[in-house]
Amino acid sequence: MVQRFADHLPVPRTIGIVGGLGPYAGYDLVRKIFRWTKAGRDQDHLPLMLHSFPGWIPERPAYLLGQTKENPGEDIGGIMAQLARDGATVIGMPCNTAHSPRILNVALERQHQTGLDVTFVSIIESAVKHVRELCPNGGRIGLMGTVATLQTRLYQDALEKAGLEPVLPDDDECALVQRAISDPEFGVKAFSDPVSSKARQILLDTARRLVEKKHVSVILLGCTEIPVAVTESSLWDTPVVDATSVLARELIRASCPERLKDPSTL
Amino acid sequence: MVQRFADHLPVPRTIGIVGGLGPYAGYDLVRKIFRWTKAGRDQDHLPLMLHSFPGWIPERPAYLLGQTKENPGEDIGGIMAQLARDGATVIGMPCNTAHSPRILNVALERQHQTGLDVTFVSIIESAVKHVRELCPNGGRIGLMGTVATLQTRLYQDALEKAGLEPVLPDDDECALVQRAISDPEFGVKAFSDPVSSKARQILLDTARRLVEKKHVSVILLGCTEIPVAVTESSLWDTPVVDATSVLARELIRASCPERLKDPSTL
Repeated sequence: MVQRFADHLPVPRTIGIVGGLGPYAGYDLVRKIFRWTKAGRDQDHLPLMLHSFPGWIPERPAYLLGQTKENPGEDIGGIMAQLARDGATVIGMPCNTAHSPRILNVALERQHQTGLDVTFVSIIESAVKHVRELCPNGGRIGLMGTVATLQTRLYQDALEKAGLEPVLPDDDECALVQRAISDPEFGVKAFSDPVSSKARQILLDTARRLVEKKHVSVILLGCTEIPVAVTESSLWDTPVVDATSVLARELIRASCPERLKDPSTL
Repeated sequence: MVQRFADHLPVPRTIGIVGGLGPYAGYDLVRKIFRWTKAGRDQDHLPLMLHSFPGWIPERPAYLLGQTKENPGEDIGGIMAQLARDGATVIGMPCNTAHSPRILNVALERQHQTGLDVTFVSIIESAVKHVRELCPNGGRIGLMGTVATLQTRLYQDALEKAGLEPVLPDDDECALVQRAISDPEFGVKAFSDPVSSKARQILLDTARRLVEKKHVSVILLGCTEIPVAVTESSLWDTPVVDATSVLARELIRASCPERLKDPSTL
């Protein structure tokens, strides 16, 4: 099958999304890709596949924190390979924690074994590049994410390399953010649609303290569950960077840059 | 790869979704599957693939109304075959118009040629079965859909066979509903997130007249773009049946009935 319509535009590359980490983050990325695409009719939208197999993929934080031995990268790589065989040439994964090199390198290696040429668009690199554009002269970047993402220093290292200063919530607040994400009683993973008011309040309180007590210039939502609960683009006069939304734009740019909406039109 | 987690539950069958008809309807179905699934953590969600290739698939209404010769069923069947080869054993398609036998039979025939055993869950049969449960003694069912869906009598025939009386908006209102769906200036296909107030108002006005002037017992949203704009489950004390939501529940039932949420918990 071929892309036979929208002949006035270049043929877009097919986007493959590794979903299921968690499921709502995959759906949130699809939504944001659609939202950022210039389209007046069905056929103008980009070719896209979402493969959401949450039951295949072991817990990422448990592996990174040494609580389990099974590397989730094996199954993530299997899904990437499946997407590539189905024709995806641009792949994204809406899960920051799974971008830890200990997981991602295993996954990419498995995908490379297919011999198919695929561009992997990193959510970490995309988000840090975007933050750098917001703060061309450097700045204090308030970072919210899972305990595992913070402990592996995924974002801290990338921000520092870009000349930015990562600023974390206090330890007890980080533990609360983790619960807002994964607590079975009120966390976003268990209650996504709608999100519980308790989870949202914890996330907003943490953002507020980053602004008021730690004087950050940007709040970076470095876990794809957080923007499911916090949809504001600005809080207390401070820009909020949603890494999922930035990934959506970078995937469109890699697929067919002509179809990326101007941010000012949203 | 295998489903290795959630060992306390039966292994679910993988759900394949033919998306892109339009793209937002595919995303809306994914959202409703997640919403209707009993899940406290990522691994409890069902395995699911969304293949959204809008550029591959010719316009369905144009074919059914004789304006083009190319049967979209060929490419739809190609996507079904791809989903089946990737392991989907339950397939759904969130587009009522594409369920017209002239399109669907060609698509299913192409999928059957794979030799893979797949259950196709019809949105039309699912919705009519649900309406029948709401109206066990028969009733007048107000039907909103595309002009092509109405002209091919997809829902009318199925409703009558179930002992229900289909009631359509007046012709000029049907033409307005079509514009609310596909007008490039304000229709849901062009403006989905958010929907334009003009499209939503046309759809609500049509529903109101079905209730007030034609005294229907149920409003059936027989086009998957409509529930993107009209999210109410009841209007003017009349139940609104969203065929996408009913399809989501039937797909979960076909995949793993133990994980279907009780409607009263939503």
